[in-house]
Amino acid sequence: MPESTKAKIGVLGASGYTGAELVRLLLRHAGVEISLLTADRRAGQEMREVFPQFAPFALPKLVSIESIDWSGAALDLVFCALPHGTTQKVIKDLMAKAGGTKVVDLSADFRLADLAAYARWYGHAHQAPELQREAVYGLVEVHRDRIKRARLVANPGCYTTCAELALIPLIRAEAVDADEIVIDAKSGMTGAGRAAKEEMLFSEVSEGIHAYGVGHHRHMAELDQEFSLVAGRDVVVTFTPHLVPMNRGILSTIYVRGLGGNRPEDLHAILSKQYLNEPFVHVLPFGSVPQTRHVRGSNLTFIGVTRDRIAGRAIIVAALDNLVKGASGQAVQNMNLMLGFPEAMGLEQVALFP
Amino acid sequence: MPESTKAKIGVLGASGYTGAELVRLLLRHAGVEISLLTADRRAGQEMREVFPQFAPFALPKLVSIESIDWSGAALDLVFCALPHGTTQKVIKDLMAKAGGTKVVDLSADFRLADLAAYARWYGHAHQAPELQREAVYGLVEVHRDRIKRARLVANPGCYTTCAELALIPLIRAEAVDADEIVIDAKSGMTGAGRAAKEEMLFSEVSEGIHAYGVGHHRHMAELDQEFSLVAGRDVVVTFTPHLVPMNRGILSTIYVRGLGGNRPEDLHAILSKQYLNEPFVHVLPFGSVPQTRHVRGSNLTFIGVTRDRIAGRAIIVAALDNLVKGASGQAVQNMNLMLGFPEAMGLEQVALFP
Amino acid sequence: MPESTKAKIGVLGASGYTGAELVRLLLRHAGVEISLLTADRRAGQEMREVFPQFAPFALPKLVSIESIDWSGAALDLVFCALPHGTTQKVIKDLMAKAGGTKVVDLSADFRLADLAAYARWYGHAHQAPELQREAVYGLVEVHRDRIKRARLVANPGCYTTCAELALIPLIRAEAVDADEIVIDAKSGMTGAGRAAKEEMLFSEVSEGIHAYGVGHHRHMAELDQEFSLVAGRDVVVTFTPHLVPMNRGILSTIYVRGLGGNRPEDLHAILSKQYLNEPFVHVLPFGSVPQTRHVRGSNLTFIGVTRDRIAGRAIIVAALDNLVKGASGQAVQNMNLMLGFPEAMGLEQVALFP
Amino acid sequence: MPESTKAKIGVLGASGYTGAELVRLLLRHAGVEISLLTADRRAGQEMREVFPQFAPFALPKLVSIESIDWSGAALDLVFCALPHGTTQKVIKDLMAKAGGTKVVDLSADFRLADLAAYARWYGHAHQAPELQREAVYGLVEVHRDRIKRARLVANPGCYTTCAELALIPLIRAEAVDADEIVIDAKSGMTGAGRAAKEEMLFSEVSEGIHAYGVGHHRHMAELDQEFSLVAGRDVVVTFTPHLVPMNRGILSTIYVRGLGGNRPEDLHAILSKQYLNEPFVHVLPFGSVPQTRHVRGSNLTFIGVTRDRIAGRAIIVAALDNLVKGASGQAVQNMNLMLGFPEAMGLEQVALFP
Repeated sequence: MPESTKAKIGVLGASGYTGAELVRLLLRHAGVEISLLTADRRAGQEMREVFPQFAPFALPKLVSIESIDWSGAALDLVFCALPHGTTQKVIKDLMAKAGGTKVVDLSADFRLADLAAYARWYGHAHQAPELQREAVYGLVEVHRDRIKRARLVANPGCYTTCAELALIPLIRAEAVDADEIVIDAKSGMTGAGRAAKEEMLFSEVSEGIHAYGVGHHRHMAELDQEFSLVAGRDVVVTFTPHLVPMNRGILSTIYVRGLGGNRPEDLHAILSKQYLNEPFVHVLPFGSVPQTRHVRGSNLTFIGVTRDRIAGRAIIVAALDNLVKGASGQAVQNMNLMLGFPEAMGLEQVALFP
Repeated sequence: MPESTKAKIGVLGASGYTGAELVRLLLRHAGVEISLLTADRRAGQEMREVFPQFAPFALPKLVSIESIDWSGAALDLVFCALPHGTTQKVIKDLMAKAGGTKVVDLSADFRLADLAAYARWYGHAHQAPELQREAVYGLVEVHRDRIKRARLVANPGCYTTCAELALIPLIRAEAVDADEIVIDAKSGMTGAGRAAKEEMLFSEVSEGIHAYGVGHHRHMAELDQEFSLVAGRDVVVTFTPHLVPMNRGILSTIYVRGLGGNRPEDLHAILSKQYLNEPFVHVLPFGSVPQTRHVRGSNLTFIGVTRDRIAGRAIIVAALDNLVKGASGQAVQNMNLMLGFPEAMGLEQVALFP
Repeated sequence: MPESTKAKIGVLGASGYTGAELVRLLLRHAGVEISLLTADRRAGQEMREVFPQFAPFALPKLVSIESIDWSGAALDLVFCALPHGTTQKVIKDLMAKAGGTKVVDLSADFRLADLAAYARWYGHAHQAPELQREAVYGLVEVHRDRIKRARLVANPGCYTTCAELALIPLIRAEAVDADEIVIDAKSGMTGAGRAAKEEMLFSEVSEGIHAYGVGHHRHMAELDQEFSLVAGRDVVVTFTPHLVPMNRGILSTIYVRGLGGNRPEDLHAILSKQYLNEPFVHVLPFGSVPQTRHVRGSNLTFIGVTRDRIAGRAIIVAALDNLVKGASGQAVQNMNLMLGFPEAMGLEQVALFP
Repeated sequence: MPESTKAKIGVLGASGYTGAELVRLLLRHAGVEISLLTADRRAGQEMREVFPQFAPFALPKLVSIESIDWSGAALDLVFCALPHGTTQKVIKDLMAKAGGTKVVDLSADFRLADLAAYARWYGHAHQAPELQREAVYGLVEVHRDRIKRARLVANPGCYTTCAELALIPLIRAEAVDADEIVIDAKSGMTGAGRAAKEEMLFSEVSEGIHAYGVGHHRHMAELDQEFSLVAGRDVVVTFTPHLVPMNRGILSTIYVRGLGGNRPEDLHAILSKQYLNEPFVHVLPFGSVPQTRHVRGSNLTFIGVTRDRIAGRAIIVAALDNLVKGASGQAVQNMNLMLGFPEAMGLEQVALFP
């Protein structure tokens, strides 16, 4: 594709891990050029100073968000990888000034359609309620058609993508008891971001595992929304996240009880059929379970279904790379739909194992 | 204690991780001397060739089991850290020849009191059924009195110790629904032993997490036995083990539903009361959850209880070091009871963190 | 490129790490198709059983080497990723039967042009001396022209690639004292391959570092050959490899003394000029040093030069991914030259960090 | 020892890793009681809130330094594990007010006897020059007698302890060329402390290795001092530190040239003789090299000597745990000498491997 016809893309928050992962993917996407990179605290620096892996590549210098002329920039699409809170104001401003610029937001700010739920989980009223109403929840395999027409897509969370891909087809089919679901999720450390916190130092988190946010993690709000949507009634699940000493990966071990005579094999059949033609969801043979390392660096989700020894119960294990399908890869997948590119474009990398 | 009056101890299978951990602990136990170390494939070598951390210490040379004169050795107690199968024959022979020698077995061979259950889970009849009947299950906090009088103690498994310490008091009190228990367990790599297997190579297991033995792990048999014992009826739980890229540690995340009006706070109170005076089980304040790294190298189990957001449900998290309280530390604790030493002797090490 | 015109490629030894890495790269190389995969012990299995990351991809079933009809296979090029020893026989047989098939060998078997040196380092006479004479040492940046015309290329070792790229331009320019070079090298665990060895188990190698092969590592023979070649006289260096608890990466810390008035800045200038237009070698600004993680998964080598505090001495640090530029990536780079593809084709992946 | 006669000990800076390690060791030291713990930012909290591994232990609450009445506290000895800079003022104040309290300082503040060297390396004049003159450099195996009589001991750095134990006997014996020494050192992450810095986050430092402070690390000043002292003239060595993805451990790979006909075997003999009766330095058989994991958690230093393939040159590898012999363990060893306890008291732990 000649340079002149490439889509112009901006990445807000390029100094974080999801920002860097967007740059990694976009650098090898034939249909786009990276036109804008922001990082407020690193404004004026080169991307290579913040992420040395980009040393050999020509990239725009980092700028601050407030220095941007959104209208003049004439971007086709902006990825917003900013912290919760800031995001609403920035996107509201951007979309007001640059009507033609589409947005994929990687924060949690636009994921909850219910403004009351947002206020309850985040402790304050939403600051861009009209945009919140317009935003489409960007779980591609579920909301593909709406995403294609969206101006603003709220990219799902990493934990939620993993659990939803495994459970939505089963809840929709009323094949599992939606009131008995337990999701035990394990995440790599990049899920916690790049902010300098004592609790994320190497020596605090290596050589051990622990649960956190037990009983009250914000990703629950997303799960509630999407599961209730397909169930047609309120669904609340048990969800416990853990931190594992690895960089990338989410593994969700999901405990379900079959409904309506559905045996574990039947749950497997439902998922296999659902994802037969999906490029980025792969269902393993019945009885096999995935490992996070086998999807590392790829946009794939692997799902396995096994029989529990208790009759009627199944154990479903799903794995993805939290920075790819759980964040930046899915964001590029959303971009592809929004800008009319083939859905898998730029996302063909094979997993890096070992 | 003068050397002459120290108890004479043997360690069978000293070239494995639990064997080395026994040596680490026994070297600093004031009441014993290490008189015998076996390792069939390394017979004739020094312990320092097999485990260089022992280079500065004087230890007996490794010998083969068949070279031992059990009667002449006149050992007070033998730790048996041999693979499943061999164990039964060796212990049968040893106990026949050296009537005064007590045994703590770290394998699974003598853990199941029910010979039929043994045959079902292990695929063959037990080869020392009389000893099986005599053996005491060595979960100290539950079977302390019987252990004191035992000749042969079957040291519990690492997963089972962790789950049983958290659940037995609750099942006994009928405070949780024993038919709705889900145990999602995560283990460090030493739990898989030191045998050279492709699947345990650094590059196969670092930087990722996976479940294994889903629906059919042999530790289930132990859980069934102990839970059914206290429930007074058959109890079967859901249990899924995972491998985590760390050396030591087991974390069990346990999902329970309260019975008889027992709220999560009540479950916490039951456990707190149960373990108030136990030297090696520590219940954290309500709402706190433990990390495996904070018990690393110690004989401690930490237990935390939290509220789930679903009314009536609680999430219990227990952590221990699989090589210490989950194996060799508990074995020494058993030895202390069997030989009349103070229960905590030689087990006072503070956890090594970071 | 239409399927029919793609080059047909075979990978011998596809069940090892370098084999899997070749498959990862070749699956995304637009000019080739993977026509043959061998793995003697896994013959008859699918690649996804050996490396689950390939589950979503169509690949030929694994076969044994002895089952292959080399002539009928009509392969354009074969990568040989077999253990030392077997390699010579297999390649000799293959090249005799299929004259049109080119070979890139990833073992050490054809790297030493001097048959006497081979016999000295490997303890036996070479079994394919004519091929040995014909083989070209595949360090692309040094032997590019000869590689283009070669039938058989001996892909360099990982340690040697890293050290040679940093040192050859300096030795050639007589800018450093070739008799005073110390190379302290650190490697990730995949460098040791996938064979099940106790010493490579997770718990043996995590959480620690050690040197090995001190004073007598076989990669020294390659260093001697290439350094002596450019020096025009015998050059022998000090080289110590270490194992680091990481999957991928080699870091070489190289201690040199400038000759002929060459200061550290001058050494940096020589390297910068040498690699200015190389796609896969990047020299950092003077005073900066690279990290292995910033080249992970890419075919890049990063080189940094710094001043030592002792006048006249410099410290050079070079980093690459041992499975890519140190093995399979460089092998694909060689293939590209041998088959007339653009040199960087299929090797454009940006490093995966974190 | 009855509680009343135990030495009263304070730890300043108990919220850092060396502080926690001191607490770990002192809790099991029969001759002391921990009477005071400070942590300015955590004042008022319990130690278990800062380091959960201490949950089962009774410890004094954390206080701020300025709240302490040094004279009234009547401490026998204080360990100072504060950051560089603050240390000088605190110790000056403490020693002025509490004449009977001895001090072991774990910072770098009192290590350099030469005030000009201090000013040069640290960029400002020393603020307690009289104490600086009085302070004894606490490398026990070299300065044991002076330490026994000292009021203020400057505990050596981790890198320096490791290199000095390996090199001082050889330089003193003029057995190696002091002008040709290269020390390539690798450290675990706890060496960087517990301050929340982006560069020490898990995802920044796992799965990779890098050099830092190349050519200008402050530990060089200590090396210069101690090497010059035994050489009787100015000695300057090449020293490069690296960070390795492990919690604990320093490995120093040291390249030397024998002088006066001393072969590698002779260097080994000198070290073996020197350390024959030292409880905490163990010289491996000639040709063996140590691994950091085999001294983990212990106060031991392992040293190996091997032959380089270049005649006359040797490679010496030394390993210790940076938090024990490299910091808190050596500090307790110093305390034992200063307070008249047996030197090894409380330091008998066997290494924790794996």
